Amino acid sequence: MTTTGKQLFTTLTADGKLTLEVAEASFPEPTGNQVLLKMEAAPINPSDLAILTGAADFENADYSPGKVVADMPEPFLSGQKGRHGQRLPAGNEGAGTVVATGDSDAAKALMGQRVACVPGTAFSQYAIADAMMCLPLGDHSAEAGASSFVNPMTSLGFVETAKMEGHDAIVHLAAASNLGQMLNRICIEDGMKLVNIVRRKEHVDLLKSQGAQYVVNSSDDDFMDQLRSAIAETGAYLGFDPIGGGKNTDHVLKAMEQVASSQMKEFSRYGSNQDKKVYIYGRLDFSPTILTPSYGLQWTVSGWLLTPFLQRAGMETVVKMRQRVLANLTTTFASHYKSKVDLEGMLTKEAICDYRQMKTGEKYLVTPWG
Amino acid sequence: MTTTGKQLFTTLTADGKLTLEVAEASFPEPTGNQVLLKMEAAPINPSDLAILTGAADFENADYSPGKVVADMPEPFLSGQKGRHGQRLPAGNEGAGTVVATGDSDAAKALMGQRVACVPGTAFSQYAIADAMMCLPLGDHSAEAGASSFVNPMTSLGFVETAKMEGHDAIVHLAAASNLGQMLNRICIEDGMKLVNIVRRKEHVDLLKSQGAQYVVNSSDDDFMDQLRSAIAETGAYLGFDPIGGGKNTDHVLKAMEQVASSQMKEFSRYGSNQDKKVYIYGRLDFSPTILTPSYGLQWTVSGWLLTPFLQRAGMETVVKMRQRVLANLTTTFASHYKSKVDLEGMLTKEAICDYRQMKTGEKYLVTPWG
Repeated sequence: MTTTGKQLFTTLTADGKLTLEVAEASFPEPTGNQVLLKMEAAPINPSDLAILTGAADFENADYSPGKVVADMPEPFLSGQKGRHGQRLPAGNEGAGTVVATGDSDAAKALMGQRVACVPGTAFSQYAIADAMMCLPLGDHSAEAGASSFVNPMTSLGFVETAKMEGHDAIVHLAAASNLGQMLNRICIEDGMKLVNIVRRKEHVDLLKSQGAQYVVNSSDDDFMDQLRSAIAETGAYLGFDPIGGGKNTDHVLKAMEQVASSQMKEFSRYGSNQDKKVYIYGRLDFSPTILTPSYGLQWTVSGWLLTPFLQRAGMETVVKMRQRVLANLTTTFASHYKSKVDLEGMLTKEAICDYRQMKTGEKYLVTPWG
Repeated sequence: MTTTGKQLFTTLTADGKLTLEVAEASFPEPTGNQVLLKMEAAPINPSDLAILTGAADFENADYSPGKVVADMPEPFLSGQKGRHGQRLPAGNEGAGTVVATGDSDAAKALMGQRVACVPGTAFSQYAIADAMMCLPLGDHSAEAGASSFVNPMTSLGFVETAKMEGHDAIVHLAAASNLGQMLNRICIEDGMKLVNIVRRKEHVDLLKSQGAQYVVNSSDDDFMDQLRSAIAETGAYLGFDPIGGGKNTDHVLKAMEQVASSQMKEFSRYGSNQDKKVYIYGRLDFSPTILTPSYGLQWTVSGWLLTPFLQRAGMETVVKMRQRVLANLTTTFASHYKSKVDLEGMLTKEAICDYRQMKTGEKYLVTPWG
């Protein structure tokens, strides 16, 4: 028996047109470890926007109900050659109710339950998901469980990465985001020192009201002084940067080196012998990353992605992380949304031009049944 | 008994003046593991230039015999705050004859021998060095042994790093350098595949005449095509870049990702799941490193320095590497010099403005006794 329902698709063609549209789709009967979910809620995360909007021009796009066609500029058009002409689903994560299952025990055990899932096709009325990756939500609402994977596992993943690499302090950029607030709560619980970098006074206040000890404002004239002081006090030589473009990572490495070299007894032409590392885990800014020659050669800049991290961490750690998320879903791991939209509502000019900005604290939740 | 002789010193003062001068210096009697060397030859390596010339203006400097005073521009002046006012020796490595020793057995065993050494003070008529870091040269000349540490250990270190990280192919930039030619010989001996990037036709010919299989020319219109082909054929996802500034590292990462994603069966919004890494081991170009958002987030750019690498590799590996260097000093590990200068000769306008350009195949050798 095939189920039908509405689903969002994104198609980039070689002529530079990006089409987003809601269309009727059919969903096969689940087999083996698969479950079929009636989707109830799915967040629009920055990691969804790469495929959903990218760098396309939605100010001057062609809007009609349930559909929009926008121009994709170079070099982003050729940069995504691999997807040209492919009609792709979207939506990393969400929550819904299991309405059919494959015949494995793991799948059958979920029948009728509300679960969080990571299907990669969450912007849809139905989705097929892997039972092993489903988290039963018990009495929690779909809204409470919709964002229980990407942000919670990512912020837990940062703390886990820091521990694995021998650090007890972290620098985090764009730190007032949903993810940043979550990371702040985790760090307080785990005794991991955290230097939060934000760029607005109200975000300093927000994080301080949530117990953050070190919050520095990159819009202040004495930003670099504030940052050096916080690094000196915490010994934070590991950073996580969701911005990527521009000089944010550069500033962090520079401040780290200035602190480390000021603590050296003797001048070295190679700079300090302190390892300094920043992970870039997002591209809120599509401009190039600029690394100036101001911190010697003992540094690393590396991309951080959730899936390779989870593979590196291993199943046992991942299961523990998910149990911790479930046990603290409405406290440590709570997410907040600015707006709710249905599938058609995702494709209005007003909505797209708002959520694609990824403003701090202004996340959208998609409720595909309205 | 104190020995006296001429030595080169470099001093950067807070007012922005960089002074290089040859002065009479005294050298203490060696103790313990130390030996006193009468220095015979020392190369001017790119790694020496950071402290020797940096970004100072030697076109318009004030030259007198055995002395030059040049202006150091910002941000390089403040960037080296740690050395302001300090009168520093220079010269990482060289070769000389042991004329006095401390009382340890290791030191005494070297008495009268010609050795290669890494004193950090090699631009001098005498130098104190650690016996453990001295390599007895047997019948080799000082010129043959002068460069037996930095380039040989660095190029061997690249191959060792690649093996430690599970690679069997390397991309190398500015590959026609003394170090690059050495790396090519090592890779041929060890069966490590090597993609050489150069920017002049004569360097393509030079490396091919030395048996290099993959040489791509960044000045050719189809450079990126050449690079992608070479990466596809070798599977080289580890690069070493001595240039640092500009888009060289970016081009390598981009080509790696294009090859990897073209080999994927399915489109992924996150790009390929192939790890891609470039080590920056020098700064031939002082402009910022530019990393464009064109290769997903599964990449790493990291500094590579010899000393931390040797510490990571461990004493046993280091001893094996040095034995290999000594056994092949005039073949695999041979260096070539464009000019020989004495200490005063290092400080003429003609010499400085030439060797600071670090042109491929135009290395200087300092012979401090003329």
